[in-house]
Amino acid sequence: MKLAVIGGDGIGPEVVSEALKVLDVVAPGAEKTDYDLGARRYHATGELLPGSVLDEIRGHDAILLGAIGDPSVPSGVLERGLLLNMRFALDHHINLRPSKLYPGVVGPLVGNKPIDIVVVREGTEGPYTGNGGAIRTGTPHEVATEVSLNTRFGVERVVRDGFARAQARGNHLTLLHKTNVLAYAGSLWKRTVDEVATEFPSVEVAYQHIDAAMIHLVTDPGRFDVIVTDNLFGDIVTDLAAAVSGGIGLAASANIDGTGTNPSMFEPVHGSAPDIAGQGKADPTAAILSVSLLLDNLGEHDAAARVEKAVAADLASRGTDAASTTEIGDRIAASL
Amino acid sequence: MKLAVIGGDGIGPEVVSEALKVLDVVAPGAEKTDYDLGARRYHATGELLPGSVLDEIRGHDAILLGAIGDPSVPSGVLERGLLLNMRFALDHHINLRPSKLYPGVVGPLVGNKPIDIVVVREGTEGPYTGNGGAIRTGTPHEVATEVSLNTRFGVERVVRDGFARAQARGNHLTLLHKTNVLAYAGSLWKRTVDEVATEFPSVEVAYQHIDAAMIHLVTDPGRFDVIVTDNLFGDIVTDLAAAVSGGIGLAASANIDGTGTNPSMFEPVHGSAPDIAGQGKADPTAAILSVSLLLDNLGEHDAAARVEKAVAADLASRGTDAASTTEIGDRIAASL
Ligand SMILES: CC(C)[C@H](C(=O)O)[C@@H](O)C(=O)O
Ligand SMILES: CC(C)[C@H](C(=O)O)[C@@H](O)C(=O)O
Repeated sequence: MKLAVIGGDGIGPEVVSEALKVLDVVAPGAEKTDYDLGARRYHATGELLPGSVLDEIRGHDAILLGAIGDPSVPSGVLERGLLLNMRFALDHHINLRPSKLYPGVVGPLVGNKPIDIVVVREGTEGPYTGNGGAIRTGTPHEVATEVSLNTRFGVERVVRDGFARAQARGNHLTLLHKTNVLAYAGSLWKRTVDEVATEFPSVEVAYQHIDAAMIHLVTDPGRFDVIVTDNLFGDIVTDLAAAVSGGIGLAASANIDGTGTNPSMFEPVHGSAPDIAGQGKADPTAAILSVSLLLDNLGEHDAAARVEKAVAADLASRGTDAASTTEIGDRIAASL
Repeated sequence: MKLAVIGGDGIGPEVVSEALKVLDVVAPGAEKTDYDLGARRYHATGELLPGSVLDEIRGHDAILLGAIGDPSVPSGVLERGLLLNMRFALDHHINLRPSKLYPGVVGPLVGNKPIDIVVVREGTEGPYTGNGGAIRTGTPHEVATEVSLNTRFGVERVVRDGFARAQARGNHLTLLHKTNVLAYAGSLWKRTVDEVATEFPSVEVAYQHIDAAMIHLVTDPGRFDVIVTDNLFGDIVTDLAAAVSGGIGLAASANIDGTGTNPSMFEPVHGSAPDIAGQGKADPTAAILSVSLLLDNLGEHDAAARVEKAVAADLASRGTDAASTTEIGDRIAASL
């Protein structure tokens, strides 16, 4: 297995190093190449993601990413120039984000109701394409636009992925959108779901407006199994799903090219948390769970399941004592 | 006071009738005109909001609306043709949505932490303008777009309103957006907030990405005072803010033309809930609190405060017994 490793900024390198510790136990011999990308490189060279680096990365089986973002760089520069650039260049159209309330984890909701949701977020379209513009910037007559681009091709492949995942687990799929307002894109999404549904007769289909989903995620999260949604709604709903499942410290994600042409990228949902970087306080759990997603995506289903089980066991026995980044990594690695 | 009343669909007429009961106590003599708009009229005549009706409505001091929407009408038709049509035609650019966890109300969050948030949502721009389109609809090559339109004029007036409200209460304003991805619109919003901030030196300003706000609303809602945001983010965040404050059964809203040229419109955030319509089960509290917002907007600050106090007292003594729609209305009216 050839792995491209991008520690990135802030706590990124710390949590990635624990994730690799765990990977080394279940998949010894993985060949890792470190890529120095993020704020440091940007300041030193002005580079975000040079074409030659991207080409090298293409030669790997998967990418493990820590976190991108630093207050010393204007907001958006690293996100768009590096993170989104990679997702788009490598056609990561399936942005997979599971949220599970593991036993022992106390979530913020009264009653600690069970949660086991997989969000399949579209990753290469919607309002994320950078399509838009502005005129008369800085004047009282400024007009700024953002264009959400949605194609049948792009929607259908992620919808089909969502159905396949639903069929492999709870047989329930919820489309989240805002069809009553965003009529053009909404209609495309709705029709596509209705049509692909005929290929998956065992899967029950539901639709919710994105605003209503906010309510249900805090009052009745158990009603969701697989959620399929667009890039922006997916960004929003996955942070809420993570929050009600115990926080983004536990939320893993996969950015998948479903065709297998390009390496997929695995990363914790959390950011670079510069305020706690270098203090050994960051929870590496999300990064370790991202390794489980990585293994699963490469067909190493047993190893993936072992890592998730080890994380679950660790979470169940954690109590309220705050362990350090390396303590958690060591513990999980040792238990394997 | 000349009031246009639109009961609308489902539970709309029921909750509006309780709201008017309360209004009659604190502002006797209000002159009310009923407008038959919604699913019934649409089925009977095909009309959504005839120009002549809109012109008549313009002649009033305010509009009280129940709810719009019925499963017998295709999704979006009533919402766009009636509700959004009214908001746009009457230039309701300030969509005001307070969320307060009243004493006695048990919210869904562990610890029942205090919540007292006012969201100032832009109401006439963003992705709500109907701007967009589709080509090759129904084919594998379909492309659908949605355009978010944002103007300095439109953003500035709602940002200024947000600052004024923050200055009159907690002196804290949070802008919610997604500036790291939606760079054109995000930059306009961010610069406008930074510039208007200089007129309100007492107000502390914060910024959060919309996804991060999801997390904070369930883990630390006390950090928010006034939130200012765009039309779509505002739609999403206000349902979550309502949910963590005890549910949309309690959430009131105002659609305000800040220039006073057109009548403003007051409505509960909840929908028409056709599943419980006509059963006396709907909670009229949100409609009654909308009357409080209405009175406040018309300068009747004392009457507005009395209504809110009566609602708060009723909520504090409600316990877990489910009272009927009219019982709650009667009780609050009687207490005044
Ligand atoms: C950093 C940002 C561009 C990114 C996104 O919006 O996709 C992040 O919020 C995420 O969810 O991975
Ligand atoms: C019904 C719908 C068009 C409306 C909106 O999106 O504004 C509703 O969700 C609201 O928040 O008032």
